Amino acid sequence: MLPPRAAALYLAALADYVPDGRVDNAYFARLSGREPQWFERRTGVRSRSRAAPGENTNTMAIEAVSRLAAKHAAELARVGLVIGATYTPWDTIGTLAHTVQRHFGLQTARAMLLSSACSSFVDALEVATAYLELGRAGSALLVATEHNSLYASDDDPTSGHLWGDGAVAALVTAEPVSAARSLRILETTAAGLACVGTGPEAVRLEPRGAGLVMPHGKDVFHHACLGMEQTARTLLARRGLQAQDVRLFVAHQANRRIIDHVAEHMGLEEDQLATTLEDFGNTGCASAPITLSRNLHRLRPGDFALMVVFGGGYSAGGVLLRME
Amino acid sequence: MLPPRAAALYLAALADYVPDGRVDNAYFARLSGREPQWFERRTGVRSRSRAAPGENTNTMAIEAVSRLAAKHAAELARVGLVIGATYTPWDTIGTLAHTVQRHFGLQTARAMLLSSACSSFVDALEVATAYLELGRAGSALLVATEHNSLYASDDDPTSGHLWGDGAVAALVTAEPVSAARSLRILETTAAGLACVGTGPEAVRLEPRGAGLVMPHGKDVFHHACLGMEQTARTLLARRGLQAQDVRLFVAHQANRRIIDHVAEHMGLEEDQLATTLEDFGNTGCASAPITLSRNLHRLRPGDFALMVVFGGGYSAGGVLLRME
Repeated sequence: MLPPRAAALYLAALADYVPDGRVDNAYFARLSGREPQWFERRTGVRSRSRAAPGENTNTMAIEAVSRLAAKHAAELARVGLVIGATYTPWDTIGTLAHTVQRHFGLQTARAMLLSSACSSFVDALEVATAYLELGRAGSALLVATEHNSLYASDDDPTSGHLWGDGAVAALVTAEPVSAARSLRILETTAAGLACVGTGPEAVRLEPRGAGLVMPHGKDVFHHACLGMEQTARTLLARRGLQAQDVRLFVAHQANRRIIDHVAEHMGLEEDQLATTLEDFGNTGCASAPITLSRNLHRLRPGDFALMVVFGGGYSAGGVLLRME
Repeated sequence: MLPPRAAALYLAALADYVPDGRVDNAYFARLSGREPQWFERRTGVRSRSRAAPGENTNTMAIEAVSRLAAKHAAELARVGLVIGATYTPWDTIGTLAHTVQRHFGLQTARAMLLSSACSSFVDALEVATAYLELGRAGSALLVATEHNSLYASDDDPTSGHLWGDGAVAALVTAEPVSAARSLRILETTAAGLACVGTGPEAVRLEPRGAGLVMPHGKDVFHHACLGMEQTARTLLARRGLQAQDVRLFVAHQANRRIIDHVAEHMGLEEDQLATTLEDFGNTGCASAPITLSRNLHRLRPGDFALMVVFGGGYSAGGVLLRME
């Protein structure tokens, strides 16, 4: 007998943890000999979030889920699936998914770690929706977290100044968990794009090699613009929507110029955009869901939110949401 | 409209790559001061496969998929999903899934990396079957590979002597790809078990910390026995089968004594077991599918094969297969 299919799925709750530490442009100006203004002009970044000593993807994951548990303990206890998402793991065996499972006593959940680099949150969301649609899990917990400062070098003149650290947790459910602030998942899409441009050579993280490096930044910029625009158009077209129908456009927070480029091409206005990169830098696969989490208050019932992401490797993905 | 569901799914083809290099017990006896016989008596391992300099999870993945492509190039070209599985990644951004996507020109596939440690192959298989069942992909490529020697220390007296390197590729399809040797996927199961025993503390791989270590080996042994037996019984019960109905029992290749323990508890006979750990050591999440790949010739039409795995973290999983 086939299991029941969920009639509707929700990104029902979000909570984030961003470490208090900040690294400003003056610091990278001193390291590089560049003007402090260069960094903001080039990327939009004014400061980057930085994990404290002793913090890592496992501890930040617990912090984010603790914030979710503060409001949704009962729903958390019932999840049948925990997916951790990161490309900057503290531990690839005692993964952040397993650490969260144990810390919060989520006895009956499947647990796994996933990475498609900065696209991971959307791929994790797609795995979760598949398991819910097939009745393999009643609800799921996604935890996206990056500890870029563990693997990046501040004195890397190419990309050392881009990165932030942070975490975000999300509940995916088959029903809203509260009267307000439940986002219905209308459409998702994801694509592996390793065959375009410089693909897997563009951004690399070799844990036992050079760490986090970006030898082909221009190629990343170009394909991130293309990939996120294409993803956004695909999702809107599926529902017969136009760019102006979107209340909140949340892109991967790699570079303000990429976001502006996509927005301009699509005819999105400034007041439709949500960003956190000014303060946090590029927090990897956590960046878009952190930004959504911080901007939920801007959504009223019936409003559409569109998240699009682009990851090294390459990958792209997105989700179209509507506030219930 | 709901997408069509696949009527049946197949582990339609398997191919493995195990590096030629071997490290014998005499080597570890010299390092540790133990008798050479101690290692085989304790674990069943006589030698371990070892990647050559320049090899890593990305290169071994390409080698395994090349062997698959030699027989199934047309099917490979059509996959809509590539899942890489590893806890010993060479690159967490230019992942092995993306490297394989690019190398083989798999233009239209989703691509992601997954880890639930030595359970990863089964979790990856479950993600693949979900995507196929929902019509998100017509077929999928799984590539499980470990490069344990990148992260383990030979002079770690506790667990340094356990590990091997290798890779395996598998096609998951909605129809057999050849007249013989297509395994129908009858049942799968997976569980996150971080709440039992020492959980995520038992085996760890901190890429920027101590590397691959196993501080709680006895706890691993105990819960691996329990987890794999429970998984095996669950899968057999779903189809009303008994242990003696299984032609080939393929467990995670961590330790011969764990496998013997599970076999004895379940009443499995020696001729039902398949092992490769004697020659390759523990090749992590690749170990069970490599062992299945090497023993496919033992299956005749109608025969049942049962794979059960157990991963650090902890996780368990399994798949019940029938040769068509």
